[in-house]
Amino acid sequence: MKIRVYYEDTDLSGFVYHSNYLNFCERARSEIFFQKGLSPIQSDSHFVVSKIEANFIKPAKFQDILEIKTEVLNIKNVSIQLLQTIWKEDKKIFEMKIILAHLKSEKTSKIDEVIKNIFLDI
Amino acid sequence: MKIRVYYEDTDLSGFVYHSNYLNFCERARSEIFFQKGLSPIQSDSHFVVSKIEANFIKPAKFQDILEIKTEVLNIKNVSIQLLQTIWKEDKKIFEMKIILAHLKSEKTSKIDEVIKNIFLDI
Amino acid sequence: MKIRVYYEDTDLSGFVYHSNYLNFCERARSEIFFQKGLSPIQSDSHFVVSKIEANFIKPAKFQDILEIKTEVLNIKNVSIQLLQTIWKEDKKIFEMKIILAHLKSEKTSKIDEVIKNIFLDI
Amino acid sequence: MKIRVYYEDTDLSGFVYHSNYLNFCERARSEIFFQKGLSPIQSDSHFVVSKIEANFIKPAKFQDILEIKTEVLNIKNVSIQLLQTIWKEDKKIFEMKIILAHLKSEKTSKIDEVIKNIFLDI
Repeated sequence: MKIRVYYEDTDLSGFVYHSNYLNFCERARSEIFFQKGLSPIQSDSHFVVSKIEANFIKPAKFQDILEIKTEVLNIKNVSIQLLQTIWKEDKKIFEMKIILAHLKSEKTSKIDEVIKNIFLDI
Repeated sequence: MKIRVYYEDTDLSGFVYHSNYLNFCERARSEIFFQKGLSPIQSDSHFVVSKIEANFIKPAKFQDILEIKTEVLNIKNVSIQLLQTIWKEDKKIFEMKIILAHLKSEKTSKIDEVIKNIFLDI
Repeated sequence: MKIRVYYEDTDLSGFVYHSNYLNFCERARSEIFFQKGLSPIQSDSHFVVSKIEANFIKPAKFQDILEIKTEVLNIKNVSIQLLQTIWKEDKKIFEMKIILAHLKSEKTSKIDEVIKNIFLDI
Repeated sequence: MKIRVYYEDTDLSGFVYHSNYLNFCERARSEIFFQKGLSPIQSDSHFVVSKIEANFIKPAKFQDILEIKTEVLNIKNVSIQLLQTIWKEDKKIFEMKIILAHLKSEKTSKIDEVIKNIFLDI
C-alpha cells in the first residue's frame, strides 16, 4: 500500500510527526479488509491495539511516497501479531511489531476463521 | 479557554496547520459544556458543524499560548450560530462564524431549553 | 483525486471529524503540483490559507471513498480563490470556497506565471 | 500534566485513537521545557523519537481528564530513555518506554548539561 506525505502529516521539524507512522500502518491494516470488500469492523467485533514496539529509522518528508508492508508474525485465539514496515524507495524507514486484540462487545473474543484467513492471505 | 500549541499542531511551515484552528474552537465549544458538568452529547442528541466562515489573520507557532473566545450570534429552533475568535496575547489571529445544527437520532431536532441556556450563559 | 476514509479521520459520532474535510482539500491542492512533478513549496515561496467558507452537506464515514474536485474561481496578483467540493459517489457532501495568499519569505508576494498556469490548467 | 479528551482525539470506536496517546506524551515532554521557560528546540538542536515500546491497557473516552507522568529511565551521551504513563483517575491506562535521540543540524549530537539537568529535575 502506497501513501503520499501531505502537509498535515508533517510538523515544524519539516518531517513526518512520529505518531503519524502509526496512522499510516493503521490505514494499511484497514486496506487489507477493504481490498477484499470487507470491513475490519464486523457487527460488534473489531480489533484494538494492545502493544507496539516501533523503531523510527529514517525521517520522511512532505511529498514522499511511502510504501507500507504488513506481514503476520503470529495468530493466536484472541490476538494477532503483525510486523509492519514503511519504505521510502528501497530504504526501510520505520518498523513496528504490533499486537492487536480482538474484541466483541468490548470483551476479548475469539478471532473467527474468516478473519484469520484474511490475515493469512496477505 | 487557553490552549498551548504543541508539535502535533504545527506543519513544515513552522506554523499551526490551518485546520487545527477549527479543532481548537471545537475544544472550546466542548469545554462550555464540561465546565457545567455536562456533555455536548445528550443521549442521542448532539450538534454537527453545518457552515463555517473563517479568516486566518496571523499565524501561531509552537509554544504559543492561545485564547479562544466564544460568543453566541443567533439561536434558532434547530441551529445555533457562534462567533469564535482566537487570540495570541492581545492580537486576534483567527475568527470564525460557525453554524451548528442540532441532531437527534441523526435528524434535525429542536434545541432543548437547557442547552439554549448553556449557550446564552457563556 | 480520490481519498479513502480511515479510522483516524472519524470521531466518536462515527463520521468524519469536520476539520478533516479541510485536510482532504489540502491534499488535493498539493496533488495538483505533485502530478506535474512540482511542489507547492518553491524555494522560499508558498501559499497560506487566508479565508474559508465551507458547507458541510452530508457526513462521510469509515471506508467511504471520496472524490475531491478543485476549480479556480479567481486568480489575483497575490492570491487565488478556489472552489473545492467533496463527492461521495454522485452526491456532493462538502463544498468550500478558499482564498490562498501567496507568500515569499513570509510576506505577501506576486504569484509567478508558472504557478498561475498550473492552477489554470487544473 | 493533565489533558482533556476532545472530539478530535476519538475515533468511531468511541474511544481515543491509539496513536493520540503518543501525542499526549509528546505534549507532556514539551511542557517539561515550557514550565521552565525553555523550549525543547534550542537553535539547531532538538530531540527525535527513536524507539517506542507501548502498552495500551485501558481505553480513554471523550470528556475524560487524563494525567501524564514522565520519568527518566536512562540518560546517555546522545539519547535519553523515558517512561511515560497515562492515568485516568487512579488507573494506569497507557505506558510507554521511549528513546529520544538528540540531533544537531540533523546529526546525532551530545546532550548539553543544561538539557540533561532539565530531565533530571522532572
